[in-house]
Amino acid sequence: MSDNLNPDEIKEYVDFLQILGNAAAEITLKSFRAPLEVSNKGRKLQSDFDPVTRADRDAEEVIRRLIHEKYPAHNLIGEEHGHDNFSESTDSINWIIDPIDGTRSFIAGIPLWGTLVAVNDGTKPVIGMMDQPYLKERYIGSPLGSTLNGAPIRCRACPDVSLATLSTTDPVQLFATDEDRKAFERVAKKANMVRNGYDCYAYMMVASGHMDVVIESGLESYDIQPLIPIIENAGGVVTSWDGSPANLGGQVVACGDRALHKQVLDILNS
Amino acid sequence: MSDNLNPDEIKEYVDFLQILGNAAAEITLKSFRAPLEVSNKGRKLQSDFDPVTRADRDAEEVIRRLIHEKYPAHNLIGEEHGHDNFSESTDSINWIIDPIDGTRSFIAGIPLWGTLVAVNDGTKPVIGMMDQPYLKERYIGSPLGSTLNGAPIRCRACPDVSLATLSTTDPVQLFATDEDRKAFERVAKKANMVRNGYDCYAYMMVASGHMDVVIESGLESYDIQPLIPIIENAGGVVTSWDGSPANLGGQVVACGDRALHKQVLDILNS
Repeated sequence: MSDNLNPDEIKEYVDFLQILGNAAAEITLKSFRAPLEVSNKGRKLQSDFDPVTRADRDAEEVIRRLIHEKYPAHNLIGEEHGHDNFSESTDSINWIIDPIDGTRSFIAGIPLWGTLVAVNDGTKPVIGMMDQPYLKERYIGSPLGSTLNGAPIRCRACPDVSLATLSTTDPVQLFATDEDRKAFERVAKKANMVRNGYDCYAYMMVASGHMDVVIESGLESYDIQPLIPIIENAGGVVTSWDGSPANLGGQVVACGDRALHKQVLDILNS
Repeated sequence: MSDNLNPDEIKEYVDFLQILGNAAAEITLKSFRAPLEVSNKGRKLQSDFDPVTRADRDAEEVIRRLIHEKYPAHNLIGEEHGHDNFSESTDSINWIIDPIDGTRSFIAGIPLWGTLVAVNDGTKPVIGMMDQPYLKERYIGSPLGSTLNGAPIRCRACPDVSLATLSTTDPVQLFATDEDRKAFERVAKKANMVRNGYDCYAYMMVASGHMDVVIESGLESYDIQPLIPIIENAGGVVTSWDGSPANLGGQVVACGDRALHKQVLDILNS
């Protein structure tokens, strides 16, 4: 349980996340699978004119507006603030927002991107949401439990890496350094199965007991904070590769089983 | 149009594919996201006891039974016959069946696997279906057109590889040889974006204009025949890397734009 939030407050914020999820979905679904014009500049990410950037910006705007109207004293931290400038306020609730995690999936028509929102109590993310509106899947985690569309979810037991399904978003391009990529490959060689390409969705497969471990590096705080309460309240564990809190992003490992987590850290750091 | 099938026959087989898709979905959805027991042997593919193998076998069985009851003279070619023994009958219709393409996605809870069925007239696949029942997405292609849940789909224009979104199922493990992997990487380096991990679903993103090119090798005939009519009747092109028909699987390239296809073949063979 959070030291700074009581169960009634947690329940209130969980309910409010539903409103935020619905509002963002209305915007993102309008742009998902909309035709992308070919220009001389290609179909580039981060162009002001592409529908993804627009959906990203508009969804963040509506989420910010709704939170600000209801909780004017709360602190808002969005994708536009980035990792370097991330600073939780310890005097108020922090809402951490990534309107479209997995923009490359979004652009490619793959329905595994997500709208991520975390409630951070000033010390850690206490409540998190991952909403995939095309699939109509909404994952929410809090000290009251982790759910998919309201039904409880649990990580599965997987005490050894040789039994594990491992995932990362891109084994070639994602890792921040060659050293990180080689550490990932040491785990991949021992795993039962490796699946790539799923962004935030892979973490939800750990939370719901279909995968066992996700390893990434180069993440931003807003990429991971909303996912931590969902996995941890489903029985899993999320840390940095050195075992410290993963709140600031960077090198992240998420496991559904604590014994597996210890083993994976040992391999990553060997 | 097929030389051996008239429009009335095509319409009849398209309608029958809906029945096959519904019957297979009833079986596959029961096992999708069912808990996988951990045994001493791990969560292995192809164990007689795992729910995926069972769903695969049961779905193929029901599809075979339904076709056999309605068209007893037709030839049935399923996954269990494999690539080496693939032989189309030129005297009858051939039904080519892959009940669960993307078993690794299926096992990992990722809803991008598909039930694939092709109608081959003895010379080529004329009608194809890719059904993803969890997403409720059914793609069907025939000389009457390509559709997603009955609505027409089209490939998009993409005249140059620098504008293209490229996909392959696994850039590290999929390719049959090192040479194949290097050829893929030559294209990947020139592409605007690369996304991995989507099996048959990537081909459907080409058919519906969200991706531009899929490059794979080591495919079986039943992996690709059902997808060819969907892409080609949406305006795209599917061939082997040498430009010959892709009916037998092996090295496959699928493009939404003919100019791009020519360019990609040149890079693969350079």
